[in-house]
Amino acid sequence: MIQRGMDTIDSVRDLFEDSLEEFVMERSSMAREEPAMSLAMEILMAGGKRYRPILGLLAYEASGGEDISEAMGLAISAELLHTATLIHDDIYDQTKTRRGRPTLHLSHGLAHAIIAGDYLFVLGFELGAKHSSRIVKIVAESCAGIASGELKQFRHIGDLATTPEDYYAIIDGKTAGPFSAGCECSAIIAGANEGDVGRMRDFGMEVGRAFQIVDDLLDLTGDESMGKPKGTDVHEGKMTLPLIHALTMLHGPDREQLADVLTNFSDRRWEELIELINKSGSLDYAKQLICNHLDRGLDLIRGLPESRAREMLAEVVEISRNRES
Amino acid sequence: MIQRGMDTIDSVRDLFEDSLEEFVMERSSMAREEPAMSLAMEILMAGGKRYRPILGLLAYEASGGEDISEAMGLAISAELLHTATLIHDDIYDQTKTRRGRPTLHLSHGLAHAIIAGDYLFVLGFELGAKHSSRIVKIVAESCAGIASGELKQFRHIGDLATTPEDYYAIIDGKTAGPFSAGCECSAIIAGANEGDVGRMRDFGMEVGRAFQIVDDLLDLTGDESMGKPKGTDVHEGKMTLPLIHALTMLHGPDREQLADVLTNFSDRRWEELIELINKSGSLDYAKQLICNHLDRGLDLIRGLPESRAREMLAEVVEISRNRES
Repeated sequence: MIQRGMDTIDSVRDLFEDSLEEFVMERSSMAREEPAMSLAMEILMAGGKRYRPILGLLAYEASGGEDISEAMGLAISAELLHTATLIHDDIYDQTKTRRGRPTLHLSHGLAHAIIAGDYLFVLGFELGAKHSSRIVKIVAESCAGIASGELKQFRHIGDLATTPEDYYAIIDGKTAGPFSAGCECSAIIAGANEGDVGRMRDFGMEVGRAFQIVDDLLDLTGDESMGKPKGTDVHEGKMTLPLIHALTMLHGPDREQLADVLTNFSDRRWEELIELINKSGSLDYAKQLICNHLDRGLDLIRGLPESRAREMLAEVVEISRNRES
Repeated sequence: MIQRGMDTIDSVRDLFEDSLEEFVMERSSMAREEPAMSLAMEILMAGGKRYRPILGLLAYEASGGEDISEAMGLAISAELLHTATLIHDDIYDQTKTRRGRPTLHLSHGLAHAIIAGDYLFVLGFELGAKHSSRIVKIVAESCAGIASGELKQFRHIGDLATTPEDYYAIIDGKTAGPFSAGCECSAIIAGANEGDVGRMRDFGMEVGRAFQIVDDLLDLTGDESMGKPKGTDVHEGKMTLPLIHALTMLHGPDREQLADVLTNFSDRRWEELIELINKSGSLDYAKQLICNHLDRGLDLIRGLPESRAREMLAEVVEISRNRES
């Protein structure tokens, strides 16, 4: 059954935004939570692509769920947990703006930003914990995976020997795992059979991996007016997929030059970096991997019964393939 | 029924330490969690007074619980959540040592400390969420209360007009609420009647308030070799109970001098501060309030059936009354 107001991706997003706003207003009205929520909502309500909750809501319907309000708590939970990690990441990545606003640690200071993130973690878990212990375990494991993924990423900062396996361990933890958990939990709540639950879990994982590799690409090629400044990852020494590929493909003086550019990077060396990346074909390689992951995702959902929600999941996949911010 | 190995407070602590260690080892052995746990355990396993879990375990038995393993998950959860807040507090309070070790942000950097705290929050919630939705709600509300209590405390930094009501709103959120939640949840798990559940909740609140006021006192009078350096709260501009009382009791030039000392505090003005605090009788006032809260706590548990666990709760109260670190 298609729900009223869920026949386009925009309408799903609108439904989510309304529900999120209602939730935030309710919590703000509690004296005990007002100080924390009034702070957290500055980032939470400042927009954002809302990929995670939209995928969750569509996964629920595509898995046969008939009452979208059942899945809304988890969708809100996913966005709260995601925003919590953004607020905390922005602190140690020293990010200056988020969702078009100053980051919380800049506008309110370190303590307030740490506490606001902690508070969103609490709320996100509370919503997640309203479901069965199976759901709680999946949500908790995906969050623990974010922490370990981030820590693994730190271990590999500036590490030119980072392998594709290392890379996937990092992004499966910090990015793809939460996508996967959201889709899997939505299918479970919808009462899907185990085959479809597994399909939605794997679908989320593939889409999440593609999502991260697109982010990696945009760091090198993105339109700065659309999102974060170019080259942020390179400045931070993050070993993104195109860089790992280029380090593998280049040999001799080119490899030495790339190692030197990455180790002693500055904005002045941007052209030099891009030239080496182009020479190694790493952008095309990354684009190919994005397509592979997304095509695998599309294959997986072809196993689900035909529905408008399944079509919209495929539309989200195409949006992910072509997004420019 | 008294459990084997639960007839002294030391034996309760030992039982808890063994269970915590087992839990930590289990999590460390998972590839997905090893990076985060190996970091978090540096603080988690470095000792600590373990008041919260000990109170929870005793509250469970005093409420008629007969299988301590039922309450152990919540006791571990309480310690994980408490340690998460310590790791994060230490960042913005710029604390240098914790449980006799360098704080995580000093030994491993800001990012690692934020992530380790986030990870312990996740684990703590996961353990809490194994119980009924009633328990989850209490745990989540107490954690949201910590965030709001901390934020309220920031609003009142250096605010000489802070009232006792403001003070209690702060400490009920950040300290007493979690004590209360732990005792209340333990009683619920033990299957206690609603009267006893309420008694354990209020008992936890009273003990938690006393616990915080003792901390306030120790900041002014404590033996530095036993715990944190003296005057930390004063340096940070935190409005502790003795300071709020002194500002209320003193008049004319004494009041002006105290306001000046607090506003322009430095170690050189320590003697001056202590003299004014003594003149206002604020230490005795704080000691009296500690006794009032603890005596109210003792009154509350007198309503429970007689048991060794009830006696040990009373012993914990006496330890709290006289602790020097």
